[in-house]
Amino acid sequence: MRHLSLVWVIMLLSVLSLSVQAQELRLSEQTEECLGCHSELHPGLVASWMRSRHSMVSPAEALQKPELQRRVSSVDIETELQQTAVGCYECHSLRTDEHADSFDHNGFQINIIVSPADCATCHVTEADQYTRNIMSHAYGNLVDNTLYRDLTQVVNNHYSFTKEQLTIGAGDKLTEYESCLYCHGTKVEVTGIVTRDTDFGELDFPVLDGWPNQGVGRINPDGSKGACTSCHSRHAFSIEMARKPFTCSECHKGPDVPAYKVYEVSKHGNIFNSKQAEFNFDEVPWTVGKDFTAPTCAACHASLLVSEDDTVIAERTHQYNDRLAWRLFGVPYAHPHPLDADLKDVVNSAGLPLAVEMNGEPVASFVLTRQQQSERNARMQKVCLSCHSSQWVENHFARLDNTIERTNAITFEATKILQDIWRKDFEKGLPQGQNIFDEEAERMWTGVWLFYANSTRFASAMAGGGDYGVFAKGRYQSTEQLNKLFAKMQLYEALQK
Amino acid sequence: MRHLSLVWVIMLLSVLSLSVQAQELRLSEQTEECLGCHSELHPGLVASWMRSRHSMVSPAEALQKPELQRRVSSVDIETELQQTAVGCYECHSLRTDEHADSFDHNGFQINIIVSPADCATCHVTEADQYTRNIMSHAYGNLVDNTLYRDLTQVVNNHYSFTKEQLTIGAGDKLTEYESCLYCHGTKVEVTGIVTRDTDFGELDFPVLDGWPNQGVGRINPDGSKGACTSCHSRHAFSIEMARKPFTCSECHKGPDVPAYKVYEVSKHGNIFNSKQAEFNFDEVPWTVGKDFTAPTCAACHASLLVSEDDTVIAERTHQYNDRLAWRLFGVPYAHPHPLDADLKDVVNSAGLPLAVEMNGEPVASFVLTRQQQSERNARMQKVCLSCHSSQWVENHFARLDNTIERTNAITFEATKILQDIWRKDFEKGLPQGQNIFDEEAERMWTGVWLFYANSTRFASAMAGGGDYGVFAKGRYQSTEQLNKLFAKMQLYEALQK
Amino acid sequence: MRHLSLVWVIMLLSVLSLSVQAQELRLSEQTEECLGCHSELHPGLVASWMRSRHSMVSPAEALQKPELQRRVSSVDIETELQQTAVGCYECHSLRTDEHADSFDHNGFQINIIVSPADCATCHVTEADQYTRNIMSHAYGNLVDNTLYRDLTQVVNNHYSFTKEQLTIGAGDKLTEYESCLYCHGTKVEVTGIVTRDTDFGELDFPVLDGWPNQGVGRINPDGSKGACTSCHSRHAFSIEMARKPFTCSECHKGPDVPAYKVYEVSKHGNIFNSKQAEFNFDEVPWTVGKDFTAPTCAACHASLLVSEDDTVIAERTHQYNDRLAWRLFGVPYAHPHPLDADLKDVVNSAGLPLAVEMNGEPVASFVLTRQQQSERNARMQKVCLSCHSSQWVENHFARLDNTIERTNAITFEATKILQDIWRKDFEKGLPQGQNIFDEEAERMWTGVWLFYANSTRFASAMAGGGDYGVFAKGRYQSTEQLNKLFAKMQLYEALQK
Repeated sequence: MRHLSLVWVIMLLSVLSLSVQAQELRLSEQTEECLGCHSELHPGLVASWMRSRHSMVSPAEALQKPELQRRVSSVDIETELQQTAVGCYECHSLRTDEHADSFDHNGFQINIIVSPADCATCHVTEADQYTRNIMSHAYGNLVDNTLYRDLTQVVNNHYSFTKEQLTIGAGDKLTEYESCLYCHGTKVEVTGIVTRDTDFGELDFPVLDGWPNQGVGRINPDGSKGACTSCHSRHAFSIEMARKPFTCSECHKGPDVPAYKVYEVSKHGNIFNSKQAEFNFDEVPWTVGKDFTAPTCAACHASLLVSEDDTVIAERTHQYNDRLAWRLFGVPYAHPHPLDADLKDVVNSAGLPLAVEMNGEPVASFVLTRQQQSERNARMQKVCLSCHSSQWVENHFARLDNTIERTNAITFEATKILQDIWRKDFEKGLPQGQNIFDEEAERMWTGVWLFYANSTRFASAMAGGGDYGVFAKGRYQSTEQLNKLFAKMQLYEALQK
Repeated sequence: MRHLSLVWVIMLLSVLSLSVQAQELRLSEQTEECLGCHSELHPGLVASWMRSRHSMVSPAEALQKPELQRRVSSVDIETELQQTAVGCYECHSLRTDEHADSFDHNGFQINIIVSPADCATCHVTEADQYTRNIMSHAYGNLVDNTLYRDLTQVVNNHYSFTKEQLTIGAGDKLTEYESCLYCHGTKVEVTGIVTRDTDFGELDFPVLDGWPNQGVGRINPDGSKGACTSCHSRHAFSIEMARKPFTCSECHKGPDVPAYKVYEVSKHGNIFNSKQAEFNFDEVPWTVGKDFTAPTCAACHASLLVSEDDTVIAERTHQYNDRLAWRLFGVPYAHPHPLDADLKDVVNSAGLPLAVEMNGEPVASFVLTRQQQSERNARMQKVCLSCHSSQWVENHFARLDNTIERTNAITFEATKILQDIWRKDFEKGLPQGQNIFDEEAERMWTGVWLFYANSTRFASAMAGGGDYGVFAKGRYQSTEQLNKLFAKMQLYEALQK
Repeated sequence: MRHLSLVWVIMLLSVLSLSVQAQELRLSEQTEECLGCHSELHPGLVASWMRSRHSMVSPAEALQKPELQRRVSSVDIETELQQTAVGCYECHSLRTDEHADSFDHNGFQINIIVSPADCATCHVTEADQYTRNIMSHAYGNLVDNTLYRDLTQVVNNHYSFTKEQLTIGAGDKLTEYESCLYCHGTKVEVTGIVTRDTDFGELDFPVLDGWPNQGVGRINPDGSKGACTSCHSRHAFSIEMARKPFTCSECHKGPDVPAYKVYEVSKHGNIFNSKQAEFNFDEVPWTVGKDFTAPTCAACHASLLVSEDDTVIAERTHQYNDRLAWRLFGVPYAHPHPLDADLKDVVNSAGLPLAVEMNGEPVASFVLTRQQQSERNARMQKVCLSCHSSQWVENHFARLDNTIERTNAITFEATKILQDIWRKDFEKGLPQGQNIFDEEAERMWTGVWLFYANSTRFASAMAGGGDYGVFAKGRYQSTEQLNKLFAKMQLYEALQK
């Protein structure tokens, strides 16, 4: 086009002003050397970083911000690290002694994976809070739990129809990596060294098993848990993106945890979708009303929120159950949130690795007390009260309590039917000491809680899920599935006669 | 960041210019007093209002606009109300005598809920049209209809598995409020007075049952029906948001009414999603081509549309069936649109509260005539013709007619199978005078029309739903469900022998 | 509003500058005559074109661009066509002799449908590549394939429940047009001439059967295949829209091909959704890092990509399998991509019109060799390597290979069960020479590959589909369906006794 429109002129000027700014900041010599090759090799990756705050602000500058505006929580950052932009080398060279994935790369000792323990160099509070976040234990809480392991095998392992019998055999690692562990996180292990012929000659690299992965409970080669990049996507590590609901949707959209779908059809989601271009997703602290007029996932569950006069409405937290009284999903019955993010010791009276009994009663020793639940609700409600009246908020939480009770009740009736089926030996489950997820009625029972009760609860908890509480895998399907389970029992009876 | 980019400078200037403008407009003394406390208590809510047209334009100014550009339809607005911004007090103090939720609040008589009858003060035509909109009767048309009440009980009530029988018991109000009534609207009733200890001392408030709710057929404490805030979300009441499809998606996305999903994958939805940043959603009248190049839900169903020379293409309407010949969803058979939005008197020859017989024939006395259908189609087609040729439009509507006929035919075959099942007493329904939604085959039958026929029809009506007419709960599932229903009948037969 | 905000001033100026530019370009006399009536008749359509590149740039100007920036590929465009904007007449008057839909319209010979063969006037390379794209044969590959025709009949034809039997009867054209053929494309045929009474007097128009349609394999009245407007929507024909994923979602969102859903929850989709306002979708060539920091569908599958120094990363292609080694969906087993886009001669050893045997073995003569697959993978991997390391990319492709193997294995087990059911005559399929899609177990088998295996494979191929590989019609449903199929076989056995 020969005539540049004014809008484009302005955008060009704005990009130029960003570039000028970036050039002013000193890069470390090592990072400059990294960029020498990698800007050519991985232009997209480098461009993401170039547009990131890490490339534009040094830790020293970041530390000078008033406390409420500060984005770094560590106070003892090494002086040398403080002086330059946070570049390739600054992150990929930390704590190399503890990194099994550390290797000599053109004379530098480099780690492939930057772990939460590395990010803690500048963001120590967040890294620490995250260890108390149930997500950080998503790997072990799944693969070390004998009950959930049975479920993953039913889903992931190899089936065989032989001699008119359908049997489940072994599984394979690659399937697990992109199935459950895609979100839960893999265990990344170094299995050897490979020599590659690159544009810059022959080079050695560690071979990683379980890589790539950005799951929330990833076990890193330095032994740490989690991946900050689950939400702060490489290599922009943007607070803006983490605050937008699209990030959460990566793992929280399926029928087992339809949070994003519920959000989209809620008033909050509608306002976000309609008005996001006018919101400011990059400000710290995040000012209710000024920066946004409807919450995103982060606003309710994580962000430091203030009012216009800088009164703190909610403290920043990376322990996302900090404002959550209940564990709503992934369990047969919703129950008070577990006390400990690591669930390896949890066991109920039937010997199952659950913090809840098969009749829906929580196991008191593993879960929040009523008092602790109230404290967490109070923190969340302060967020709600920024826009809603006390009555609005109270009635909302009363509905959620009722919905938890009602969805648990449906699951209990389904459980009673399944127990009847087991008792009569139509299918083999708990009494027979066998997998409780692999037969027809068992799978119907699983659907009742894993999908339909969850959807109904999210539609309730998030203040308006429209159809997700009714016809979209909500109460309609929950009762339909109960009906089918009952019909299956009747069929077993009829065929037996 | 030390260097403000030019883009940000411009945005700041623009916000400043808006603020200057807002300050120029006089607020009423009462509203200023409201804001004294509530800006601090509910900063998000107040910020939404501050950015709204209500805070920036007085009714007097609004009335001076040329007729086509006017956003208020009342001509007899009280002089005092005309002079100030439309603030807290201006809306929450109207018609207090008729408001059961009215109470003394710091010396002012305030209503908690602003109802359509209050909004009619300035928007009388829209409020009046809305009473003829079937949505305004969504509460009564559901809970006072014995047939649909049976369906809601199957979905919402409490199940019990006792003595090897599965039975449906009573329901509970809180479940209903967030299930069907979330979209249909609750009946909001004042049940008492509560004294609260607030930041500003002890204060009394009415206690509301059925609150919060923004359902389209909400029964308000002043006896009026509906909630303008269903679409014009508090406290921005924005025409922009109501014109974006996200608003409609709050209730029109589930499998029973997948309008938004269909829109998203249509050409129209694609163009909206790709180009919305270049559209102008705030202009009145809304000029085809200039303000937008693809319609949203509002463009086809509600908005005042003009061409560049201000020729009216479609009159604004809040009776959304004004351009609709057919009732497509929520009924066993699609049929000509009901004549009256209030369906309480509707009954077919079998005594069922439906405007259609069980064989798909509409009950003529309750529905539009062919002639009336043609008039409504003509209004809609004028919108289509803004971009499409006569042949395009005719062929599109011929396909829709065919799809209505074909989906009704599938439902009729399913109905015949179900009637056979009832006749043989395998399940108990109409002949036995029992709930027709609560057994296995009955639920299969329900799925045929409530989900799959609906999806197929929406995919047709909205000019391109891609998979929603085929594999995404469309014809594939409709015929599969018919097959399953038939197999169920065969199984009943086989087991009986 | 009395005070125009600065942002609006700027937008107005920018629109003005565009208008000035458009006016500078000469329109042909014929196009000016078209616009004389049609701006009034179809303001939306004309406005789309007015904002398009076609209205602003003449072919002569387009040809002067450096090769990498050039958007036209023909070098021998007629001199007369080169001098004006690409207006109504320039496109709708081409090759009239070959157009059955050509007609005299106010003294001009006009075609209703502009076909790929017409677009080839300026875009010859793209039109040519598209003929080798499997999409261009989507019509014939469906309706001329006896196996898929059986499937379409089960989905689209009329069912009848008579004398306690459910039978499938004839179908109807209008249903087919908006069912499978909506995406696959209709055959558009001229069936007569109609005289219409228009605002400009009586006029004759060809009557088109199968119109409207924008399906990818549409058979046009000039005998050509496809519709450029499938992706370059009328009348903007925008590269920006074709590069945004919303365009692909029109046909690639349903459970049979959930590519868009997978994209949305992938890291790539998250970055696109969060940062698209900062991307530049209109530049040619498309520069990785500068114009975008996460790929859309087009980036990986179609676009000409360069790095900042204009090194070509990927050549533009309209043969979208050019970077694809495997055919993932729409077939019982994933197999190496077919050699020829036209599948009419494909047949396996069982005589079925498939490039794969019923045990999952590809039929070598119809599909890519390993070597050819490697070449296609290499082209795709060059795109991946713009942001990802060699190890990342290798491991990703190894997972995809494994997932193809595993999902094919599940389908094979399901096939063995179905073959058992056929052998025992419980249902009638291949051995009986009957439709293999129309009975209960057959439909379960279809679901295993058509929905669940596909979803699992897309979640793998697109580097992160979250739940679409597990609980959202992924491995969970795939194994559940296998279980149900097995239970169905058991039920047949039990009832036989």
